Amino acid sequence: MELWALSRVLFTVKKVLDRFLPALAWKRLGDYLHETQLLLSIQSTLYWDQNTRMPVEGASWRGEQLSLLAKKLHARQSSTQLESLLTDAKIECSQALGLAELGPFTVSDLSRNIELLKQDLERQKKIDPELVGRLAISKAEGYELWQKARAMSDFSMFAPALSNLISLRKEQARQLAEDRSCWETLAQPFEPDITLKRLKELFDPLRRRLPELLRQATELEPFQSSKWDLSEASQHELCEHLLDCWGRDGNSTALAKSPHPFSITLGPKDFRLTTRIVSGQPLSCFLATAHEWGHSLYEQGLSLNRVNWFGWPLGQPTSMALHESQSLFWENRVARSYEFSERFWPYFAKAGAPLNRGLELWRAMNPLTPGANRVEADELTYGLHILIRTDLEIALLEQGLPVEDLPYEWNRRYRELLGVTPKDDGEGCLQDVHWSEGQFGYFPSYLLGHLISAQLSNAMNKALKDIGLEGQDSIGECIRSGQEKILLSWLRKEVHPHGRKMNAEALVKQVSGSNLSSSPFLSYLENKIEMLTTFT
Amino acid sequence: MELWALSRVLFTVKKVLDRFLPALAWKRLGDYLHETQLLLSIQSTLYWDQNTRMPVEGASWRGEQLSLLAKKLHARQSSTQLESLLTDAKIECSQALGLAELGPFTVSDLSRNIELLKQDLERQKKIDPELVGRLAISKAEGYELWQKARAMSDFSMFAPALSNLISLRKEQARQLAEDRSCWETLAQPFEPDITLKRLKELFDPLRRRLPELLRQATELEPFQSSKWDLSEASQHELCEHLLDCWGRDGNSTALAKSPHPFSITLGPKDFRLTTRIVSGQPLSCFLATAHEWGHSLYEQGLSLNRVNWFGWPLGQPTSMALHESQSLFWENRVARSYEFSERFWPYFAKAGAPLNRGLELWRAMNPLTPGANRVEADELTYGLHILIRTDLEIALLEQGLPVEDLPYEWNRRYRELLGVTPKDDGEGCLQDVHWSEGQFGYFPSYLLGHLISAQLSNAMNKALKDIGLEGQDSIGECIRSGQEKILLSWLRKEVHPHGRKMNAEALVKQVSGSNLSSSPFLSYLENKIEMLTTFT
Repeated sequence: MELWALSRVLFTVKKVLDRFLPALAWKRLGDYLHETQLLLSIQSTLYWDQNTRMPVEGASWRGEQLSLLAKKLHARQSSTQLESLLTDAKIECSQALGLAELGPFTVSDLSRNIELLKQDLERQKKIDPELVGRLAISKAEGYELWQKARAMSDFSMFAPALSNLISLRKEQARQLAEDRSCWETLAQPFEPDITLKRLKELFDPLRRRLPELLRQATELEPFQSSKWDLSEASQHELCEHLLDCWGRDGNSTALAKSPHPFSITLGPKDFRLTTRIVSGQPLSCFLATAHEWGHSLYEQGLSLNRVNWFGWPLGQPTSMALHESQSLFWENRVARSYEFSERFWPYFAKAGAPLNRGLELWRAMNPLTPGANRVEADELTYGLHILIRTDLEIALLEQGLPVEDLPYEWNRRYRELLGVTPKDDGEGCLQDVHWSEGQFGYFPSYLLGHLISAQLSNAMNKALKDIGLEGQDSIGECIRSGQEKILLSWLRKEVHPHGRKMNAEALVKQVSGSNLSSSPFLSYLENKIEMLTTFT
Repeated sequence: MELWALSRVLFTVKKVLDRFLPALAWKRLGDYLHETQLLLSIQSTLYWDQNTRMPVEGASWRGEQLSLLAKKLHARQSSTQLESLLTDAKIECSQALGLAELGPFTVSDLSRNIELLKQDLERQKKIDPELVGRLAISKAEGYELWQKARAMSDFSMFAPALSNLISLRKEQARQLAEDRSCWETLAQPFEPDITLKRLKELFDPLRRRLPELLRQATELEPFQSSKWDLSEASQHELCEHLLDCWGRDGNSTALAKSPHPFSITLGPKDFRLTTRIVSGQPLSCFLATAHEWGHSLYEQGLSLNRVNWFGWPLGQPTSMALHESQSLFWENRVARSYEFSERFWPYFAKAGAPLNRGLELWRAMNPLTPGANRVEADELTYGLHILIRTDLEIALLEQGLPVEDLPYEWNRRYRELLGVTPKDDGEGCLQDVHWSEGQFGYFPSYLLGHLISAQLSNAMNKALKDIGLEGQDSIGECIRSGQEKILLSWLRKEVHPHGRKMNAEALVKQVSGSNLSSSPFLSYLENKIEMLTTFT
């Protein structure tokens, strides 16, 4: 018998068996999610290529590819097939059927997965597909107009598109009809369960204290240093060295350049990150690499040992604030620490930086001076940039702030809170991409990330002391001795693996023993300013 | 009225109009093909990333993404929807409906497009989807086993997978049930209308003459030159310089590195190519870039002015042999010419090559010595590598050659035709990827490409002389004066834009005025050997 004929017989036998022994519903659901995840990761691959390699003329075709995938994904994520799979899996779950085949996962894991999937499906179903289409087009238009307006530093060119996006997003919140305000509804995908009330509790102390700390910092003796820069090749070498020190596995990661640094996961074992060179700012590329590697480590931790759950909600990030806390930990708590500078300054000196000791690198890593730009801001001033954006987007969505007043309000707040006045709209309210794509509710995640990072760092410090690490600052000890893998192990155990099992605040409470608060972050900043005063 | 509400009204109006004014069938067919092309180009983007950037551990997930797309594409390309669109469009075409809206295209263009689509659909429909699945799996398995076998230089590890692939491809040919032999049927997608009889006519003179020419070439006084190499950076600079000289538009092209050089089109204005550095072979990267750029120029010419036809058969390559003729033209006829070396040797010298005149670079570009490897072979010996492969795959598919005899037969033919014996299976019958992926019928395209390139070059030479370019060799004159754009314009006009309007032989006849023959290629080789003799 020919090989082909034999395999045909075996296939037929399998087909018959499949008909009489249907797979368990949760397995069929898993297959469905697996295919959705394949499509999502194809989308991510196109996005990666678009930002790292695609020639400019490829943009419009790429836009069509992405829009085709978006439509197919929306259809999958709101389908009746998904709905019935969820119903079946829920029944199965309540009867604890197929338990033995769940492997290392519990029935409560599965049950939580189903609950979240149901929630996501209900949201998708409530939205009129026509609105989905309108939003996709308006986002693309908004992004294009924003780019032009920013290049011309002219907000009025972008204002009509922004009005349109606000109107569509308000309509979306109305269709979702949740028991929440408009801003709260739109913020849910980024920060599950966030409320305006809670945001106020967390941010009010920062609103009071950050400007005082900034005044204190500006009174520091100015650090005497000549302007210096590093060659592109040296900066790349330093980044590669950093990633090697931090345990990067070259078989599952790749690093590239892009206009805006980002980190993205393209498969359960395929992690990508990008960085960029900013002329005249020799630390920008290095710190961006540290930041994006933190994001990537988090996603690597999420996927760890759960290839089978890739595509399930429990394999997805807890929230954007938690995600940001992980990038900020590696960027700020580790790379901007004194111990890190003590260890790394010789590499910088060898690369051509005019440095004679760790202190000088450390001062350069921690300028603590206000500027008009969020992305290049340091730990102290970053929060002020976010408070301004948070207030303004709530005002635009819920308090009737007219779009045309945005530049005036933006500049007024920058003067009041940071003491700087943007020289034009490009440096001012046009600097960020988020609103141009209709993303409202995202900005607070950055600042919440700072709070979470500080509170988790304290818990980590305590835990490391308990296992016998010497000194006041166990994290600092690990950095001094090049043992960042100890920090990573702790994060891998306590923070990374939970996914969407709980929301970010619950996770912080579970790990640190207390509710999320702004105190650890403020104490951390006070301590840093004091150190900078002592060491100058 | 809110903006959202207004746009909703407009959408409803459009919907009603669409219902009462349905689009013409050929336009609906165009939309269908457009979406197919979007999916195909997504597949290509994944392939590009896989070969240029993906970390090794990403392979298995990437395999799943590609297999999902392959299944969706097969479904689209064999669907009843496509079938009825084709029927409607054909009726419309015969009644010359919607003519005014065809723009710059003719009814005969559309009619040819429909004919080819119908042909492709019929082929897809005849194949059992189970066989499609089996083939996809067996190709992946074959590729994996081939990699392992090649690394171990042990053919016996790969032999069972090859037997399986041969059996499946024979079955495929049986299902296609064309009025052709098995090998001919499988070769159609690469070389439309090719027959074994025609192949024999074209290749028999080469079979006689190439070994004689090789003996003549080996009698040449050996070229005295020390072994030299160039740094990676210098090689890349030379490649960039070459592409700039040859009119590369950086806004629509990108160059990267990959283990095997290739060229690929990701969108109507998005052209990518790769090259590679081979240690100890300082011209390999440069010539690979020239070769791949030739492929890319062809695809750029195909897409030129036909963004609307991207996705239609007339926007697709005429055949693989024609494709190869375009890469070989730029690699061999241009980059390996004496005039090119005269012009480029100073750049090579500046990059560190021990060269004092053009002649030395030209000799290095044209070794004309036999070796065991196809990819690194020169113009003279390349054909012999192809003759061996062509004979063997026909023997495997149609003449009952047992798979286990392949290494013996391979080595015997290499000894007889090229006078070299591969030192093991890795250097021998395991060197090429094609059979491991079940690709039979592709190899002859390479050699046909040499024949086509030579015959088209003669036609080009004549045409350029007619427009008043001086000298015996007008192509050489253009190269000497750095005016390769004249060569490109001619190709853009005569060769590139036809797509699948006709087959490769018809195109050659249209352009050159005579049937394809091996004579121009053999004369070209004879001439080159004579020049090498004279100049030594």
